[in-house]
Amino acid sequence: LLDVWGPTAIGIGDDAAILDVPAGERLVVSTDASIEGVHFHREWMSAEQIGARAACAALSDLAAMAAQPRGLLLSIGLPSDWRGELVDIGRGVARIAASLECPIVGGNISGAGELSLTTTVLGSTSTPLTRSGVRVGDIIFVTGEFGGSQAALHALESGAGLGHNGARFMEPTPRVAESRWLAGRGARAAIDVSDGLRADATHLARASKVSLVLNAAAVPRVAGVTIPEAIASGEEYELIVAFRPDERPDVDGFAQRFGISLTAIGVAVPMGASAVELTNISDGDTAGFDHLA
Amino acid sequence: LLDVWGPTAIGIGDDAAILDVPAGERLVVSTDASIEGVHFHREWMSAEQIGARAACAALSDLAAMAAQPRGLLLSIGLPSDWRGELVDIGRGVARIAASLECPIVGGNISGAGELSLTTTVLGSTSTPLTRSGVRVGDIIFVTGEFGGSQAALHALESGAGLGHNGARFMEPTPRVAESRWLAGRGARAAIDVSDGLRADATHLARASKVSLVLNAAAVPRVAGVTIPEAIASGEEYELIVAFRPDERPDVDGFAQRFGISLTAIGVAVPMGASAVELTNISDGDTAGFDHLA
Repeated sequence: LLDVWGPTAIGIGDDAAILDVPAGERLVVSTDASIEGVHFHREWMSAEQIGARAACAALSDLAAMAAQPRGLLLSIGLPSDWRGELVDIGRGVARIAASLECPIVGGNISGAGELSLTTTVLGSTSTPLTRSGVRVGDIIFVTGEFGGSQAALHALESGAGLGHNGARFMEPTPRVAESRWLAGRGARAAIDVSDGLRADATHLARASKVSLVLNAAAVPRVAGVTIPEAIASGEEYELIVAFRPDERPDVDGFAQRFGISLTAIGVAVPMGASAVELTNISDGDTAGFDHLA
Repeated sequence: LLDVWGPTAIGIGDDAAILDVPAGERLVVSTDASIEGVHFHREWMSAEQIGARAACAALSDLAAMAAQPRGLLLSIGLPSDWRGELVDIGRGVARIAASLECPIVGGNISGAGELSLTTTVLGSTSTPLTRSGVRVGDIIFVTGEFGGSQAALHALESGAGLGHNGARFMEPTPRVAESRWLAGRGARAAIDVSDGLRADATHLARASKVSLVLNAAAVPRVAGVTIPEAIASGEEYELIVAFRPDERPDVDGFAQRFGISLTAIGVAVPMGASAVELTNISDGDTAGFDHLA
């Protein structure tokens, strides 16, 4: 693997890797697993894609905190019939890590009965975003479009192949640069969408002890996806971000810079009976979220 | 799990944990996996012991670097028939973490076909020990006694039960305090013994570009273990440490403080044909390593 990783891998060879956190910054760390038969099936994607997807999922947690990636550790449980794919798996991890300037600083390969990739990521930032920073009155934004990941998954499960949303499932993009841009412009809280927009908005609301009123029809969707599908679609790795009403980010500047949308979809209100209240969820209704736009 | 972990777990609930590395210290990080059928068998030990052992193995890598543990992340691949054991696994991890004052800062639980525990540990130190610091003339020491881990494993495999070396296998002790004591008294390089004394001495020699001449008969052994068994025994999690000849550590003070031995077993010489040359390996010969004692 070290041959494949080349300069992406640093400091491997000791019992542990040594890293320096920039002065004044805090360390942010997260771990994520990708397991055969649970998170992916062998026939669905290539070994390279399995590696890339595991790295994307883990690094997205750093994006949620607005942290700059500083290092990735990969622990692989490798069954004997996957041994020939090890280099391709590593290549996929390294491609994503390199695209975010994240060095691979450690790893572990072990025999196993099923393929598993456990990816631990370290990042740093002076101002981490958390889930608990939303305040009443804050405007809730989302990055990008929703529904593509689940649409691709359903296409795979039905045997129809990946379809036109394949890239959304195969290679979600951790919104690292986007998150740091948003954090630098007043974002108060964030979460990445791994369980689905509705579910993760609920996590955000609960951690912040507020309720969120979201206009489901305002959530940007990929073509062919219904509103209920869009808000349920998991593993999107887009961000939900909160801003003070008087500190709204420049959505046009964001779109221009990153090539994806930044969309207001709701507002935080005092904690009520439900953590997230969705309006306009009926699929026919595609009205915008005018009073917040 | 959070109920079981109590105050041992901190900062869990966001996408990633936030940690602070003390000013002037460097971050040390390592990951280790423990997989059912590879590293342990269900009938060999309790769920609590499986958790404790995984934590021990991971934290030993911090000991090898003389780093103070600062945080542990646990990713569990949990088959449905292990669900009832989750709390006990977590309890075992927490007990070891707490004994080393290491907070549990993150984790992940995922469905899986086989039980796997991937443990990532973070530590910090201003002066990390590495494998590459041994210089010609340095004296090589080991902590503790060898052979117990493998003896217990063989007893388990033969169906005889754990035997009197059970604790050595079930719960190796990461030599964190010992390593920091040694690093503070001039230790130049270290490695922990996971593959066996001979194998890990080879790793140390290669990384340092020296050869090591080791007196196999001087290696402290648990009762009933032969010299070849002692130097082959893996998962001992004792340390091999190098000191300048004029900076020998106080072995009596070490033994008094930690209740285990610190023993000179060899010397570093210019790199030769073999990375490690073992003398007195025949089992009958139990002469000490007098010219170094």
